[in-house]
Amino acid sequence: MSRLSHFLITFAVLITSTASSAARADDQDVIDYREHIMKTVGEQVAAIGQILQQKAPAENFATHAQILAITAGTAKKAFEQKVPGGEAKPEVWAQWPDFSKRLDELTAATADLARIAKTGGVTAAGPKVQTLPCKSCHDTYRMEKKK
Amino acid sequence: MSRLSHFLITFAVLITSTASSAARADDQDVIDYREHIMKTVGEQVAAIGQILQQKAPAENFATHAQILAITAGTAKKAFEQKVPGGEAKPEVWAQWPDFSKRLDELTAATADLARIAKTGGVTAAGPKVQTLPCKSCHDTYRMEKKK
Repeated sequence: MSRLSHFLITFAVLITSTASSAARADDQDVIDYREHIMKTVGEQVAAIGQILQQKAPAENFATHAQILAITAGTAKKAFEQKVPGGEAKPEVWAQWPDFSKRLDELTAATADLARIAKTGGVTAAGPKVQTLPCKSCHDTYRMEKKK
Repeated sequence: MSRLSHFLITFAVLITSTASSAARADDQDVIDYREHIMKTVGEQVAAIGQILQQKAPAENFATHAQILAITAGTAKKAFEQKVPGGEAKPEVWAQWPDFSKRLDELTAATADLARIAKTGGVTAAGPKVQTLPCKSCHDTYRMEKKK
């Protein structure tokens, strides 16, 4: 290997490792990211709840169900990295197979809700909202902080 | 009109007006609903910002752009009813044609972002994020409250 190519490779490695260390998410970033997702879930469930109480426009119902379903699908990736903190109990990672299965179930249940809402609106999908597995999972895995 | 049909019509009107008064959203409901939407927008923009800083998984980028676009499309309906309060300045309704045009522009810009993100990922869509018309609209129409 010539001295020039050795220099170029060393330089390239340096650049790459600097870039990847700059790019690594620290613990607070990981917590922030999953909170952006779970807060979105919370806001959309709240909007859906208002519609069910006839306090918000029913014509947006199927769209909120769709947003909820798509958002639920991003959550597992956000919890994969083991970083206790925020409102997540350590059980999330200690019982990862169960927790991740529950996120899969949430994704499936919200996708189902969105599908039914799209064709049947509030009448068909409204009763399904209460069957979403939010509380059972929060009871085990979430330690809600006072706002 | 017979007395019976008069009675039946009066009865029907009573039922209808009672039902619609039970169903009417009060001012706080209207404010809450649009805040659920704008907070969702905020959380999704924050998640996108983290990805652009390489502090959250890039593979979720297109999905967040999609959630953002769909959510933006629900905002106009949420602001239609003239209810000052929350973080909305009275200018929202005083200058409704301009405000609603800006929401249409936001919807179009986020839909464009989502479309580009779906095929081109962060590389293609990342630079578009800074061109979203958030700040210009907030400067005129939003009075941010301390959290």
